[in-house]
Amino acid sequence: MEPEIPEPESASKIGQQLAFLVEADKLKNVLRRTMLTDGSRQENTAEHSWHLALTAMVLEEYAPAPVNIAKVLRMLVVHDVVEIDAGDTFAYDTAGNATKEERERLAADRIFGLLPTGLREELRSLWEEFDAAATPEARFANAVDRIQPFLQNRETGGGTWHTHNLSRDQVLARMDPVRTALPQLWPTIVNTIDEFFAKPSA
Amino acid sequence: MEPEIPEPESASKIGQQLAFLVEADKLKNVLRRTMLTDGSRQENTAEHSWHLALTAMVLEEYAPAPVNIAKVLRMLVVHDVVEIDAGDTFAYDTAGNATKEERERLAADRIFGLLPTGLREELRSLWEEFDAAATPEARFANAVDRIQPFLQNRETGGGTWHTHNLSRDQVLARMDPVRTALPQLWPTIVNTIDEFFAKPSA
Repeated sequence: MEPEIPEPESASKIGQQLAFLVEADKLKNVLRRTMLTDGSRQENTAEHSWHLALTAMVLEEYAPAPVNIAKVLRMLVVHDVVEIDAGDTFAYDTAGNATKEERERLAADRIFGLLPTGLREELRSLWEEFDAAATPEARFANAVDRIQPFLQNRETGGGTWHTHNLSRDQVLARMDPVRTALPQLWPTIVNTIDEFFAKPSA
Repeated sequence: MEPEIPEPESASKIGQQLAFLVEADKLKNVLRRTMLTDGSRQENTAEHSWHLALTAMVLEEYAPAPVNIAKVLRMLVVHDVVEIDAGDTFAYDTAGNATKEERERLAADRIFGLLPTGLREELRSLWEEFDAAATPEARFANAVDRIQPFLQNRETGGGTWHTHNLSRDQVLARMDPVRTALPQLWPTIVNTIDEFFAKPSA
């Protein structure tokens, strides 16, 4: 009788989990339009995702109804992993946004597909829930995803509002999820935007 | 009667929370010794913290007893924020580690001190719990904090094991928290370390 061939690590469950974690490292090389607050370089999506998780922890009390913070954090950690293949699509890029859904779906197939069954569906469904923005957790997480780049822009003289020549209406529309999901933050947001667009250089 | 002077945003509770979040952006400029898996550059502490949160989500099932995953994630998101002032202290740097505790305590005073009361104590205690490594959540989080750089090193031909001329015993000792907190991962860890140190170039 032939000796049983041991299962290679890459085919084992733990091997699949570690392969996914190694693949995830690539998110550190996906660049967003937003600059760091010191203006030294563009932010990458991995560090952005960390900053969102911290933002959720710090602003949780302002959610209009209690949220399951574990779900919010898990959603924020995973919500941009598809950008490893699909890249970051700038919020105001109309052409890019027309193909974003299809590009991200293919990316999700491949990247979550690295995981063993169970985890694969679990992480994918967190990503889908974030994108659908229909649950209290997803609405809160989406508002957090607006607040963090807003702060980076505020700290860098308008940031992408300035460099991409956006209008006050475009920025307000982009920030709109905050109005309902973090209502106590809304006056601060509107004041900052108004001050920025009142300046002659804006 | 003098008109009441409106409270500046920086003195309001929301203002303090946003100031902390802006300060946290600096963690993206704190460099660790670990390289990205493509070898292109050193990893920063913010993206490292994100990767740890993802690792905890993916490996949760291997914790020997159930853990409160919300607490684990909150702990991992916040555990290295003190490095904004204290810098990353390389695990094998004896001199640096002799002063690490004092440097990080002062950093915690200043950085968590930016937050309003309540949140300040809450986030600081998560950091302290991680460092004490005495609860199941902290032990799991500490093991995760060993696994992630281990994978980056494995993927870059030994990484810091190689560049810093570490011995097999040093690396095994550093990885030891995994032995008890993620026992099912331990054989993979030991095999990888043994394979690396068996090579003539190691």
